[in-house]
Amino acid sequence: MLYLVHMIVEIPSTMPAEEAARIKAEEKAYSQRLQQEGQWPHLWRVVGEYANYSVFDVESNDALHEALSQLPLFPYMKITVTPLAKHPSSIR
Amino acid sequence: MLYLVHMIVEIPSTMPAEEAARIKAEEKAYSQRLQQEGQWPHLWRVVGEYANYSVFDVESNDALHEALSQLPLFPYMKITVTPLAKHPSSIR
Amino acid sequence: MLYLVHMIVEIPSTMPAEEAARIKAEEKAYSQRLQQEGQWPHLWRVVGEYANYSVFDVESNDALHEALSQLPLFPYMKITVTPLAKHPSSIR
Amino acid sequence: MLYLVHMIVEIPSTMPAEEAARIKAEEKAYSQRLQQEGQWPHLWRVVGEYANYSVFDVESNDALHEALSQLPLFPYMKITVTPLAKHPSSIR
Amino acid sequence: MLYLVHMIVEIPSTMPAEEAARIKAEEKAYSQRLQQEGQWPHLWRVVGEYANYSVFDVESNDALHEALSQLPLFPYMKITVTPLAKHPSSIR
Amino acid sequence: MLYLVHMIVEIPSTMPAEEAARIKAEEKAYSQRLQQEGQWPHLWRVVGEYANYSVFDVESNDALHEALSQLPLFPYMKITVTPLAKHPSSIR
Amino acid sequence: MLYLVHMIVEIPSTMPAEEAARIKAEEKAYSQRLQQEGQWPHLWRVVGEYANYSVFDVESNDALHEALSQLPLFPYMKITVTPLAKHPSSIR
Amino acid sequence: MLYLVHMIVEIPSTMPAEEAARIKAEEKAYSQRLQQEGQWPHLWRVVGEYANYSVFDVESNDALHEALSQLPLFPYMKITVTPLAKHPSSIR
Amino acid sequence: MLYLVHMIVEIPSTMPAEEAARIKAEEKAYSQRLQQEGQWPHLWRVVGEYANYSVFDVESNDALHEALSQLPLFPYMKITVTPLAKHPSSIR
Amino acid sequence: MLYLVHMIVEIPSTMPAEEAARIKAEEKAYSQRLQQEGQWPHLWRVVGEYANYSVFDVESNDALHEALSQLPLFPYMKITVTPLAKHPSSIR
Repeated sequence: MLYLVHMIVEIPSTMPAEEAARIKAEEKAYSQRLQQEGQWPHLWRVVGEYANYSVFDVESNDALHEALSQLPLFPYMKITVTPLAKHPSSIR
Repeated sequence: MLYLVHMIVEIPSTMPAEEAARIKAEEKAYSQRLQQEGQWPHLWRVVGEYANYSVFDVESNDALHEALSQLPLFPYMKITVTPLAKHPSSIR
Repeated sequence: MLYLVHMIVEIPSTMPAEEAARIKAEEKAYSQRLQQEGQWPHLWRVVGEYANYSVFDVESNDALHEALSQLPLFPYMKITVTPLAKHPSSIR
Repeated sequence: MLYLVHMIVEIPSTMPAEEAARIKAEEKAYSQRLQQEGQWPHLWRVVGEYANYSVFDVESNDALHEALSQLPLFPYMKITVTPLAKHPSSIR
Repeated sequence: MLYLVHMIVEIPSTMPAEEAARIKAEEKAYSQRLQQEGQWPHLWRVVGEYANYSVFDVESNDALHEALSQLPLFPYMKITVTPLAKHPSSIR
Repeated sequence: MLYLVHMIVEIPSTMPAEEAARIKAEEKAYSQRLQQEGQWPHLWRVVGEYANYSVFDVESNDALHEALSQLPLFPYMKITVTPLAKHPSSIR
Repeated sequence: MLYLVHMIVEIPSTMPAEEAARIKAEEKAYSQRLQQEGQWPHLWRVVGEYANYSVFDVESNDALHEALSQLPLFPYMKITVTPLAKHPSSIR
Repeated sequence: MLYLVHMIVEIPSTMPAEEAARIKAEEKAYSQRLQQEGQWPHLWRVVGEYANYSVFDVESNDALHEALSQLPLFPYMKITVTPLAKHPSSIR
Repeated sequence: MLYLVHMIVEIPSTMPAEEAARIKAEEKAYSQRLQQEGQWPHLWRVVGEYANYSVFDVESNDALHEALSQLPLFPYMKITVTPLAKHPSSIR
Repeated sequence: MLYLVHMIVEIPSTMPAEEAARIKAEEKAYSQRLQQEGQWPHLWRVVGEYANYSVFDVESNDALHEALSQLPLFPYMKITVTPLAKHPSSIR
């Protein structure tokens, strides 16, 4: 099941640089694992912003919340979730 | 080059049913042609809305405007375009 | 799987009264069928508005869009869908 | 009497982790007591957000404010309250 | 129980003048009845707008919706309801 | 002359508890004085929020600004003022 | 007493040209009378919009609503009123 | 003097096609005249929208309003004007 | 040339009181100089807010930015500028 | 390919003055290099704001994100990107 997820990252300017770098590295590793497992088929950077649009393919709402709330950057993100369905004109 | 495009369709309630049906059929044919040509790799229905999120893959801003402004439903759409770039964590 | 759905109804003032009454009757019958089938466990009126908050319990995003887009009043509604997950503090 | 309550939690990043954990534990205990007492029949997690939608069933506006303002996380919440009424199509 | 109610009136410009006048007269009579019955203790005009702020004093959410949805101008109003509680500093 | 005043209080989480308590006590005393003097006829708590809706009855815009800007909590408030006039349907 | 008033004019495209011209002429005459009487000391056009910012100098909220609601274009205006007070740094 | 001007065009769906075509032709001729005269140095299409961003170079606010309000499509446009100044880092 | 300027002041609560008082005194002196020079003909307090509406009368956009960006409180202000033109109904 | 880019700068008030000055100097040097290279043809100051509107001329979305995300002030900016296309009435 597909969801469009918009993530805006706002890391407090008071966070020490090393801590920010550590969390970002964990975030990259975590997201690449989910991508390899097929839960996170699309991850695009929004031009000009520290934000992304992603498409998740998971079993349920609960599975999606589990995946998102485990993101190391989750506490520093503003996330919006839009559930997607098959479009009648889509050829896929 | 990728763009996320959000399209909200608002057909005036005063439009005769046959005219609406004709335009929708043209829209479907047009969109499926662009999908087959690879310009429109993703087309998803937003659950609960007469709207879609799409991803376009085209050569330039001008090419995208050309593709969108030729949509038969274009005069009845509220469209928002978000340019996308490669995300540093994406495995694609 | 649960979704919170907010529906604001805006019937054009130009619609003849009988047509509006007919569609509303169809809407009531349709919604009560889905309620009896268990897809629509909660339906509440927003005080002071021609709007409702509902909770749907369906198999997937596609199932939800199917249920919503078949609403007789669908063309006259502004719908927002919020996917819900189990809350860690919920005793249910 | 029913109310839909939307709670967005924003704990300051400067709060020490133990203090945050303590308040969250108190919050869980408090909310589960109200749920057992029947004042808080529904508590759902908004997918992707540190937020919930809840339904409260209380005697009056004052009773609702009493229940909400006693939430241990109240000082760190953005709360919106929507009074609900019986929907003419509801089969409950 | 008190509620602050904000009502913005938008009568379609296509409505014949006599019909508008008739509905407004019915609205005035209806609102003055509720005021005399004590359900509508305050009714103020928002300066510069065809809108009002009112305070209703009714038994329940359902009673409020009943009172508001029976307003002759209800189909032409955008209504927002804010439930009120006793303020700890109020001397009333 | 009447004004509807909406006050949202946001005390910085970094303020020491005693200082906050002191200011709140001053606020309560100040507001009760104005209420007794008849300048502040209505003060209601917005359910679920650290906010209030009030009605002020003062001589002029300047008098209202004087009253509001002297509120001990003024520096920590987001205030919106709506001038009110007599409603043609009001029986008061 | 001073108020800043923002008026956005939206005349329905369905209104016959002569009727629109007549109302605009009445509006001009009415506004120039109030200006000569000193109630409307400032009237400025917002560049690029069929809108204006005005300053009114009147006795009370009720007087302002009387002046505004008598504007021939009142039914076709979105008006926002901001009450003004003397600024402590103003040399006037 | 430079201004950034954002123009969103909304032609009513009820306008006959020939009338719309005539006004659009007048708009094109008018805008190209101003461009040739140097008042309108930049005119760009917003991708996916019946809207443009333009830069005007005119003597004064009044000159800008004169130029904009004479646009044949002016009655069907939502225009926002942002005055621009020389940027300290600009090499022009 | 006239501009309406809306200034909302937000001084961080962490700024020492003396520093805030010093900047405010500089602001008052600076603004009164510009008023005496005729660049700042109107300065009004927005009732209930630490904000003002002003009218500036300056030669150009650049002159206005120069005047505003030199405000001692500039770093702590949210400023919105609306260029004004002569209104066809204004008697001034 | 052209993009309109709106940049609002918000440097935290807690940042030491020297550090802010250093970053601003780096920003100026970086932006002037891109201007000289032709990637940044227009850079205008928004009157009254610590913000600019710019036009970028780059090969692709990715090139634009590269240019923007390398801005020394990038972490302290709110950036909005609007892709532009040739306008059918433009004489350029």
